[in-house]
Amino acid sequence: MVRFGVASDENDLEEELRKLKVQALVGHPRFTQVVMALILINAVLVGLETYPYIYDTYFPWIQWTDRLLLWAFTLEIVLRMIASRPTLSFFKDGWNVFDFIIVASGHLFVGSSFITVLRVLRVLRVLRAISILPALRRIVTALLLTLPSLAHIAFLLSILFYIFAVTGTMLFGEVSPEYFGTLHHTLLTLMQVLTLDSWASGMMRPMLDSAPWAWIYFTLFVLLGSFIVMNLIIGVIVTNLDRANEEGKPETPDQGSELRALRAEVGELKAMIRELSERGK
Amino acid sequence: MVRFGVASDENDLEEELRKLKVQALVGHPRFTQVVMALILINAVLVGLETYPYIYDTYFPWIQWTDRLLLWAFTLEIVLRMIASRPTLSFFKDGWNVFDFIIVASGHLFVGSSFITVLRVLRVLRVLRAISILPALRRIVTALLLTLPSLAHIAFLLSILFYIFAVTGTMLFGEVSPEYFGTLHHTLLTLMQVLTLDSWASGMMRPMLDSAPWAWIYFTLFVLLGSFIVMNLIIGVIVTNLDRANEEGKPETPDQGSELRALRAEVGELKAMIRELSERGK
Amino acid sequence: MVRFGVASDENDLEEELRKLKVQALVGHPRFTQVVMALILINAVLVGLETYPYIYDTYFPWIQWTDRLLLWAFTLEIVLRMIASRPTLSFFKDGWNVFDFIIVASGHLFVGSSFITVLRVLRVLRVLRAISILPALRRIVTALLLTLPSLAHIAFLLSILFYIFAVTGTMLFGEVSPEYFGTLHHTLLTLMQVLTLDSWASGMMRPMLDSAPWAWIYFTLFVLLGSFIVMNLIIGVIVTNLDRANEEGKPETPDQGSELRALRAEVGELKAMIRELSERGK
Amino acid sequence: MVRFGVASDENDLEEELRKLKVQALVGHPRFTQVVMALILINAVLVGLETYPYIYDTYFPWIQWTDRLLLWAFTLEIVLRMIASRPTLSFFKDGWNVFDFIIVASGHLFVGSSFITVLRVLRVLRVLRAISILPALRRIVTALLLTLPSLAHIAFLLSILFYIFAVTGTMLFGEVSPEYFGTLHHTLLTLMQVLTLDSWASGMMRPMLDSAPWAWIYFTLFVLLGSFIVMNLIIGVIVTNLDRANEEGKPETPDQGSELRALRAEVGELKAMIRELSERGK
Repeated sequence: MVRFGVASDENDLEEELRKLKVQALVGHPRFTQVVMALILINAVLVGLETYPYIYDTYFPWIQWTDRLLLWAFTLEIVLRMIASRPTLSFFKDGWNVFDFIIVASGHLFVGSSFITVLRVLRVLRVLRAISILPALRRIVTALLLTLPSLAHIAFLLSILFYIFAVTGTMLFGEVSPEYFGTLHHTLLTLMQVLTLDSWASGMMRPMLDSAPWAWIYFTLFVLLGSFIVMNLIIGVIVTNLDRANEEGKPETPDQGSELRALRAEVGELKAMIRELSERGK
Repeated sequence: MVRFGVASDENDLEEELRKLKVQALVGHPRFTQVVMALILINAVLVGLETYPYIYDTYFPWIQWTDRLLLWAFTLEIVLRMIASRPTLSFFKDGWNVFDFIIVASGHLFVGSSFITVLRVLRVLRVLRAISILPALRRIVTALLLTLPSLAHIAFLLSILFYIFAVTGTMLFGEVSPEYFGTLHHTLLTLMQVLTLDSWASGMMRPMLDSAPWAWIYFTLFVLLGSFIVMNLIIGVIVTNLDRANEEGKPETPDQGSELRALRAEVGELKAMIRELSERGK
Repeated sequence: MVRFGVASDENDLEEELRKLKVQALVGHPRFTQVVMALILINAVLVGLETYPYIYDTYFPWIQWTDRLLLWAFTLEIVLRMIASRPTLSFFKDGWNVFDFIIVASGHLFVGSSFITVLRVLRVLRVLRAISILPALRRIVTALLLTLPSLAHIAFLLSILFYIFAVTGTMLFGEVSPEYFGTLHHTLLTLMQVLTLDSWASGMMRPMLDSAPWAWIYFTLFVLLGSFIVMNLIIGVIVTNLDRANEEGKPETPDQGSELRALRAEVGELKAMIRELSERGK
Repeated sequence: MVRFGVASDENDLEEELRKLKVQALVGHPRFTQVVMALILINAVLVGLETYPYIYDTYFPWIQWTDRLLLWAFTLEIVLRMIASRPTLSFFKDGWNVFDFIIVASGHLFVGSSFITVLRVLRVLRVLRAISILPALRRIVTALLLTLPSLAHIAFLLSILFYIFAVTGTMLFGEVSPEYFGTLHHTLLTLMQVLTLDSWASGMMRPMLDSAPWAWIYFTLFVLLGSFIVMNLIIGVIVTNLDRANEEGKPETPDQGSELRALRAEVGELKAMIRELSERGK
């Protein structure tokens, strides 16, 4: 973590020492615990705010605590930035960028009239619990790593969605404007059909009188959609199992090398006996 | 099971003998069968009680049988406690603690006015079928063992729930007070959305008129929620498969040792030939 | 298939010859094709009968065809019985017993007034397509074989169902008699909750006014129920994967024996060299 | 790709040269990119058409662009046909046939009065994105390859559907004509029950008054249907995992051959020592 070489080139010894002190502070488990506690207080605060009675009565208190929290988080980020000098290396970690944006946006919108945006931002600070706890960080990273392997099948699913959306709007736009009125209405409807929520009871059946063939459209989409989603899920399972299998199998290559070593020794044996036999002649 | 050493220190031989007799009684298969039968009678009884006609007509009978059952269970627990003297060791098994609490609470609340609590407790005695049958005990233990591996992803899910709950209450609290009125209402609503029950037909669509952007909130939660739940399930599958695989693979390490032995023998061979060759010089 | 020994003990040669002829007939692929065709005709017939217009107009035709089919099936069963003499061995295969019951019951109820029973029996003859086609037979046998491994967890699920059914009837019997009126109503309700059909929108929410704590009951059951069902499904997956893995791994034991043979040969080598070395002294 | 032998037999050198040029053109990555762009433009166009305002205002523009696109696609197909002379070999690839049909049908229905058919065909051109992108092509091929392994269990499912459809129409045809009026109504109803959409809340419960035993029919179908569908899904998972496992295990046979080679060498050793020992006598 400590890069003496880099530091001595541009900073004097004093600054380097300060950096080391900050690193010790930031790396201390107590530091993480305090930040986690602040995140928890922030979480409880945004939760309490949703109750109008509490919000109206304790408004000044809540506002003050919130400002204190924002500055505490800012201080934390600044400390961690100093600890990982040069500043650029701080931004190399995606999680740090995430933390920075969450906190910086809190300052940006302060005093603005977009109160809802500000409040949503404060809620999003709860997400920092993930970036602070290494275990959660690892899980989210693992989840994100499964995404690329799903890209192709997700693209396939979106082609299916688009084709059925255009066809659905064309065929049922006038029959059922609530569900198939425009292209974006239909896309939302298809999302609902894919989750199987009232696809038949609420949507298809009322349409059967005026569009008796609508069942073909719905059944086809349910079957194709479920089939692709099923394969998407299976893809994730297979990827996960493969990774788990690879981690659990370190012995086989070792055995191969053992075998090769054995064969080499038998080769030496043969050479020794050949020599012995030739000498005996 | 018999600990002579411990016993001889504190009890006389007579008491030790009594303990052995009780152990023989408790360990007998017939003992388990009788207890299982009592649990079954208890189950039928609490079932019959739910029919008001039967409850009103046979009330004294039911009450008497119930008291008899409670004392029979108490006797069983006491016998099993004696069999596993010292008493403390009895409470080391979580299942025994469970049995004890179920039966003891029956005595605690007897005659109290919390009739509903008492009846629920009597229903819970049916759960003793699990602690009595070893096969079920093993399955429940296995199920409980998968829980820790799910802890992290469950925590992630609860962060997601909390953030969407606060945001939902903020954004839709006035639009749809039935679903998003307060923080706890929203949490229940999100639970319903996660099970995909009427998330679109019953909740989102009626809100689209007054909050046209609500679909982003719902779709995002459905996608993120399903994705995390899916990974939670896959986690359990992978854990289970790994355990199943490990149990089914006892041969590989054996093969490795076989290989090592073979190599040692070839090494001896080489030494023998070297000796032979040196002698021949 | 041909058991000369058994036959010559009790039957004369002529009868044995007849049996062989019947076996050749029954084993012929064309025989299976004809039976399959009859099952198909039967299937189309019971399908057409459901349309009242066709039923009323062609009633005599349908009845005649049906009688013909019943006798054809009877003839088939009798032939297969003769082919697998002694008759008892015919009933050793569960599928044969199944075929026999399906056909025999058709004769039993003929002319009876239980028209619905008779018609349902005729529909069930379609199931014979499974017993006739070996591929389907194998799949159904495989499905049935997964059942025993699920027995324990299914028992656990039924304990959960029973406890929640009794508790539900006790707590909500008066609040929502439609869903929790009696024990069997509640069991059906729980089945519906387990499939997540309108568990919140249709059942829990209307009850929240009069029983504000109902959400605990529902959420708990949804969580526990889904967890057990999930493990039930995972159990089937693991069982299936294990079976698939075992079928795909015939090589490892062979390798072990190869290794043992190699070691034996190296042992012989050592003995030979020792002898050589002793001779050299 | 270039078959000189075949070409020199029937064409002169000039034509062969032209074919080579076309192949270079068709094989160029820029060619695929242009076609992909045309498909995208086509997709946006059919999307915009669904908005009546845009359709009415820009109708001539849309029509012209559409005709241009059709001819562009035709040119593409013709070029690819020339590149893969003889023409018959072009049609050996299923994806080429698919492309040909999609484009050819556009010409067939041009100017016809079946405007809806024409528009649906134009939507289907979006599917060409699959045949153009090799990654998607591979995924769809993989998905199609899992289908045969599901054939048997799908047949089993359809037998279940048919039996329950006939029985349902017979039993509930008069009680609930909306859901069980005719055989095809019942089949659609069963499809809905299988997706668990309002199977209890919308269908079974309203029927319980007039057909109190309907719950047996529904519960049985839900259980059997889910069980078979679950096994269908598990079948796909097992097939996929098997394939993934086979791809990831190239080492084991290599180890076996290594072992055999080792044994052969030990055999040679033994022969050498025997010779040595015999000479020493």
